[in-house]
Amino acid sequence: MEVTRRTFKDTLSVICSAVEEADFLAIDGEFSGLSDGPAVSMLTNGMDTPEERYSKLRKHSMDFLLFQFGICTFRYDQSQSKYFTKAFNFYIFPKPFSRASPDIKFICQSSSIEFLASQGFDFNKVFRDGIPYLNQEEESQLREQYEERRNQSNGVGTPSYISPTSCKGPMNIPEEHKDFINRVVEKVEALLNNSEKTVDLEPCSGFQRKLIYQTLNWKFPKGLHIETIENDKKERFIQISKVDEEERRRIEQQKHEREQEELNDAVGFSRVIHAISKSGKLVVGHNMLLDVMHTIHQFYCPLPEELDDFKEVTMCVFPRLLDTKLMASTQPFKELVTNTSLAELEKQLKEKPFKAPKVECSEGFQSYDTASEQLHEAGYDAYITGLCFISMANYLGSFLTPPRAHISSRSKLIEPFYNKLFLMRVADIPYMNISGPDLQPKRDNVLYVTFPKEWKTSDLYQLFSAFGNIQVSWVDDTSAFVSLSQLDQVQIAMNTSQYAESYRIQTYAEYMQAKQKNAHTHRKWGDDGWAEPPYRTVAMTAASAVHDRCTLRGKRSISPTQDNQNSNFSTAESTWSNYSTTKRIKKDGAVSTDPSNSKTTDDWLRTTNESGASESPGNEAPSDDTWPQSSANQNQGSQARSSGLFDVPQVW
Amino acid sequence: MEVTRRTFKDTLSVICSAVEEADFLAIDGEFSGLSDGPAVSMLTNGMDTPEERYSKLRKHSMDFLLFQFGICTFRYDQSQSKYFTKAFNFYIFPKPFSRASPDIKFICQSSSIEFLASQGFDFNKVFRDGIPYLNQEEESQLREQYEERRNQSNGVGTPSYISPTSCKGPMNIPEEHKDFINRVVEKVEALLNNSEKTVDLEPCSGFQRKLIYQTLNWKFPKGLHIETIENDKKERFIQISKVDEEERRRIEQQKHEREQEELNDAVGFSRVIHAISKSGKLVVGHNMLLDVMHTIHQFYCPLPEELDDFKEVTMCVFPRLLDTKLMASTQPFKELVTNTSLAELEKQLKEKPFKAPKVECSEGFQSYDTASEQLHEAGYDAYITGLCFISMANYLGSFLTPPRAHISSRSKLIEPFYNKLFLMRVADIPYMNISGPDLQPKRDNVLYVTFPKEWKTSDLYQLFSAFGNIQVSWVDDTSAFVSLSQLDQVQIAMNTSQYAESYRIQTYAEYMQAKQKNAHTHRKWGDDGWAEPPYRTVAMTAASAVHDRCTLRGKRSISPTQDNQNSNFSTAESTWSNYSTTKRIKKDGAVSTDPSNSKTTDDWLRTTNESGASESPGNEAPSDDTWPQSSANQNQGSQARSSGLFDVPQVW
Repeated sequence: MEVTRRTFKDTLSVICSAVEEADFLAIDGEFSGLSDGPAVSMLTNGMDTPEERYSKLRKHSMDFLLFQFGICTFRYDQSQSKYFTKAFNFYIFPKPFSRASPDIKFICQSSSIEFLASQGFDFNKVFRDGIPYLNQEEESQLREQYEERRNQSNGVGTPSYISPTSCKGPMNIPEEHKDFINRVVEKVEALLNNSEKTVDLEPCSGFQRKLIYQTLNWKFPKGLHIETIENDKKERFIQISKVDEEERRRIEQQKHEREQEELNDAVGFSRVIHAISKSGKLVVGHNMLLDVMHTIHQFYCPLPEELDDFKEVTMCVFPRLLDTKLMASTQPFKELVTNTSLAELEKQLKEKPFKAPKVECSEGFQSYDTASEQLHEAGYDAYITGLCFISMANYLGSFLTPPRAHISSRSKLIEPFYNKLFLMRVADIPYMNISGPDLQPKRDNVLYVTFPKEWKTSDLYQLFSAFGNIQVSWVDDTSAFVSLSQLDQVQIAMNTSQYAESYRIQTYAEYMQAKQKNAHTHRKWGDDGWAEPPYRTVAMTAASAVHDRCTLRGKRSISPTQDNQNSNFSTAESTWSNYSTTKRIKKDGAVSTDPSNSKTTDDWLRTTNESGASESPGNEAPSDDTWPQSSANQNQGSQARSSGLFDVPQVW
Repeated sequence: MEVTRRTFKDTLSVICSAVEEADFLAIDGEFSGLSDGPAVSMLTNGMDTPEERYSKLRKHSMDFLLFQFGICTFRYDQSQSKYFTKAFNFYIFPKPFSRASPDIKFICQSSSIEFLASQGFDFNKVFRDGIPYLNQEEESQLREQYEERRNQSNGVGTPSYISPTSCKGPMNIPEEHKDFINRVVEKVEALLNNSEKTVDLEPCSGFQRKLIYQTLNWKFPKGLHIETIENDKKERFIQISKVDEEERRRIEQQKHEREQEELNDAVGFSRVIHAISKSGKLVVGHNMLLDVMHTIHQFYCPLPEELDDFKEVTMCVFPRLLDTKLMASTQPFKELVTNTSLAELEKQLKEKPFKAPKVECSEGFQSYDTASEQLHEAGYDAYITGLCFISMANYLGSFLTPPRAHISSRSKLIEPFYNKLFLMRVADIPYMNISGPDLQPKRDNVLYVTFPKEWKTSDLYQLFSAFGNIQVSWVDDTSAFVSLSQLDQVQIAMNTSQYAESYRIQTYAEYMQAKQKNAHTHRKWGDDGWAEPPYRTVAMTAASAVHDRCTLRGKRSISPTQDNQNSNFSTAESTWSNYSTTKRIKKDGAVSTDPSNSKTTDDWLRTTNESGASESPGNEAPSDDTWPQSSANQNQGSQARSSGLFDVPQVW
């Protein structure tokens, strides 16, 4: 279902109930660009830490506009053993709400625009009929403005134009406006003494209107209703009506309701995101880090500077996320999927050993045909992302005894993939862990090399030719990371470089330390040059803004839930690691790890659990506190405990 | 005529001949935004100097995209006494030309986009079918790239991947690529010994392709043609063909021609601007400063920092400009025109005392109907801008003896309006003089006031209430210019403020001096606090780039031309001043100034002629040197003199 400004209001309740009834939903966004800084390949360095990656994306990607948002809801019908889908394709545009509202500027990147254009993207729909939106701060500012205007026309409060140095009251009318104001007062006196009901004043300036409000509220505190009206020529004039108190109150009430509706219209698409957030439903995306960042940035609050603060906000807005690209890149799928791009993945997940999921388009909704691809329409991409998730989830069911054809989106089998967002092009940190500390690879074999601008990759190959195979990740014109394949060569390479003049080599640890120093941050560093997991428990401004909404929502739980007695899955401490090694299923259905096969993956799988977060709760006696909890969580611990937001049916 | 990427190539010759045969042409641009900084009203302060205004627009407006360009050519047909028009409406978009070409980012301002959308602007046409373009630097870079690639495949030149420290030649093949390269050499040797004509190598990396080119050119300097080809999957592979020298040369020649065509396609819309520039025709616009700035910025070179350098570049690109908004705001039109916005102006210029011009749409061109307005389509706006110009020009003819119904666009009567671009919202400097120094108002009655953020306009009114009427021009949150109506109050106000703590008052001269100091410029200041007209004669980088093109053009003349014997217009030194005072036409057709009516306008009409520029040459013996000449001009003096680019017919 295509949703524009014209249809949004009438569709909102349909959207909200689709979200409410859904088992899970998939999302996808289309943007006006990807990177306003260096090329994306440069931006996403293979040696980025999650902090660095977040910081780069925040700096270089948030000025683009998320202008198409796809949502596809999936509801499982037990009796028919199939999913019913409702796909929505929203066009989004920050149409200025009024003269006073923010006039958003956004960047377009010609390569992205060109790409979308080549896919038949309808820019006219975005710009002519896009649904407006406000973030939380803009929304409250607008609310305040309304409030202030109400107070002003009620004669309450301090009109903002009065300077702090001048005394309050109507004596401040500048000389050249005195005649004008006197004439207005005369007109009003005439109105009060004749049989007319209203009088329209001439159009005048905003300043003059303020003077009129101020003067009349002071001179005639009762019996008048004063209102600013725009005529056909867009000029504003004041209309004054004689009213008794009751009528005045009724008019005020009507006006208030009209304003509330205007305000809701202005909040626009953000209300959909609020509804998703409020539902607490599992939100699935494909390579969804940028989607999540943009969604929060555009509809909640400017992104916080620190990654940990971003994680906290994210968990507040989207308590359960799942990234199908990360899922497909992880065992047991890793070995079976050759290409994790969305379109290819969707095709492969229809073939053996996977099965195309049984889905049906809900009545009244346009059905997508995966044969005639409509890729890069956000609604379609969300739809096939959901299909990918179902195929992969169901595949996990084949390992159970007895095997199950359908695995619920609330199943424990899915949990290891929760809140882990795919990190593009980082070999040794495959994901950003939104609900806990990130994996911390040693990178003992990585050197940071600085050199003259003229150097090319071949120079680096030559320089390191004596130290075995290398991998080069460019940082900028004059520096790169060089990974040696043999750890014992690192010290030798360092020693060799001691007297070099044209280039300089640092260990990765030295590089990180220097970087950290430059950034003037106050994180503690361990003996091995690695940062102590700095997962903060102090809420910050951005998060607390969102947090307010979370609290309002009253029941926020990111804890897995009960009824796991039937689970016969591995109870190993790290279920995640199990997936990440070669699949070896025992007859009884338990998965065992095969350490011989986890040579390269093993390193990044050993998460450092200093903060007490365990990757998976396993299937011990269920506990609400198994997951790492931010302060926001802790504040609500009791609430979360008392309400079973997720009543997981016994599905396997 | 609507022109997109699809039709551009076939239309280019039509456009060029339309420009060549035209008497004058009108232009108009539509942009993706106006100001990325403060609100436009803040940006364009009423007390801006031309330097400040230019600097602000350059800083805050050039990141928007000029995405629709309208050109309407006007050719006068003497026999039918009417103009024939050809209107073009170009959609422009910087489609990346290749992977290596610049990936332009541009800003969109939602209010501007919303405005255009409400006018039915077709964004899809821009983004899907916009004509690409390159500025001069991008064009030469692309030419160099082609040259380099040609040399590389010819075995000439230094492949860029060889580092300065390593010796040249094919010995630099990194260890892990040696096997690969050896296999390629074996394949080529096999090709040379068998009956096949060509061999296709496997797709490989750019680095590997470089290695192949290098090795093969070294090992087989003759008898081979090597070419990189893209397959259906967008993978690049190398194809090697056996050729004799003649065939090799023929293939190279074909390739060269193909590349030249690709290059021309990439230069795209810039070629239209080059054609206009080369024609030297009068270019008319309405409120055209931003159009001119964007046109130069997008299709020639990034705008220079200094206004004088911008003027120099502009005169090189558009030797004759005329701004209808400025014309309409000047005597004799000022008194007759109540609204100078384009749509209103066009309407008024159809009514008495003006006459709607006789125009006809040329065959094969879509005719515009001014009754059904298509405002804000650039082609339409250019069309009615031209109509406005004709009406006003013809009106000037009514002052002649005998009166003339048609005034040529080359008439001396028009010259006073040449190269003066309307400056929005500056009361005492109505235009930016592109071909000479700017007007320099004294502003002795202006004070610069700084104050706390809380202050509003009313505070300023109160503060100055003792000093007569004032006018306030806000600079930013904490400062504003205050113009006193009575000059004798300035010193009193200054004295009063001496002991003030919350605010501070400077004279305008003091403010300018402080500003100039902060800017670290090296301009000299006169005793009165005014800059010496700093019109520089040294060409700067930006101008010289454009200048190359000017020189290529071979005949650039901005001097007015001969055959003025019939002119019976005023011979006063400043024809401009004549227009700027109340209209008083003597019976013999000469215009006389009425000083009593030039109270406020008089100040800015007195241009400082230190640099030898006279506002108008009058009708003395014609001279090529009457106009201020930049170094670019002087370089070409002899050329300009020898060619009569503008052969003005004896029109009146």
